[in-house]
Amino acid sequence: MTRTDYFDEPGAPAATSVVPSVVAIVQDDRGRILLIHRTDNDLWALPGGGHEIGESIAGTVVREVKEETGYDVEVLALTGIYTNPRHVMAYDDGEVRQQFSIAFRCRLVGGQGRTSPESRAVSWIDPDELDALAMHPSMRLRIAHAMDDSRTTAHIG
Amino acid sequence: MTRTDYFDEPGAPAATSVVPSVVAIVQDDRGRILLIHRTDNDLWALPGGGHEIGESIAGTVVREVKEETGYDVEVLALTGIYTNPRHVMAYDDGEVRQQFSIAFRCRLVGGQGRTSPESRAVSWIDPDELDALAMHPSMRLRIAHAMDDSRTTAHIG
Repeated sequence: MTRTDYFDEPGAPAATSVVPSVVAIVQDDRGRILLIHRTDNDLWALPGGGHEIGESIAGTVVREVKEETGYDVEVLALTGIYTNPRHVMAYDDGEVRQQFSIAFRCRLVGGQGRTSPESRAVSWIDPDELDALAMHPSMRLRIAHAMDDSRTTAHIG
Repeated sequence: MTRTDYFDEPGAPAATSVVPSVVAIVQDDRGRILLIHRTDNDLWALPGGGHEIGESIAGTVVREVKEETGYDVEVLALTGIYTNPRHVMAYDDGEVRQQFSIAFRCRLVGGQGRTSPESRAVSWIDPDELDALAMHPSMRLRIAHAMDDSRTTAHIG
């Protein structure tokens, strides 16, 4: 399945659904950030995905990180909520989802890195190297908010 | 429309949907909390409701508080997310929603109190008087989390 992001674009298709989703900001003991190279849009991104009926939101985070990276994490804090109605994602089955993403800082507790059908690469990236990667601006923003120690409350946007 | 909450009950119906919703914790200059007496389940509750396509989550908060109470608010902070899969709400049209509620502390900026089809009463309640009101335990918990000044991060549950 391919996915196209529209961000503040006048010609974007109208949203047809809202599915709460999560991203996880996980750092290793050297401060590197866990990223995946997505198969659906060829961009680097934080691991994450959609909430499913029957699970808590922390359960979604743990499941998605495991599925996409092989690592086990524990949720520490909610660092931001991103619900810009002018950011929509169009899928090739016709669904157009309005952004509804919640970001969580997590702690690595186990597992072994491996790729998945959703992630062609799973890498620990030094924060200084982020600029060199192809990444959606909204993803860079979530990383910046999660790593900003001066913040005392979650970003609301 | 009537609504029945099931909270950790073995005989609860299975969830059929997840709709992100919000509640607002608004205090006046005397520290009283804005509550509504709901028409759908006859309980006292924080104002709030479901997120709609086309709006940001802060937009949902502002709209729902206005609709249910007549007051204008500004969102200050995200104080908790409540996604217990064992808390479901059954509506008389057959929909069974799994809890997915986000709580926000807000500031009163204007408006005039009035009732609505969803709220038979709109009242400012002293925190000491909360125990005397019929209120769902999950609502008391959200108020407690939002008013706990020792918390430095949002509750995740």
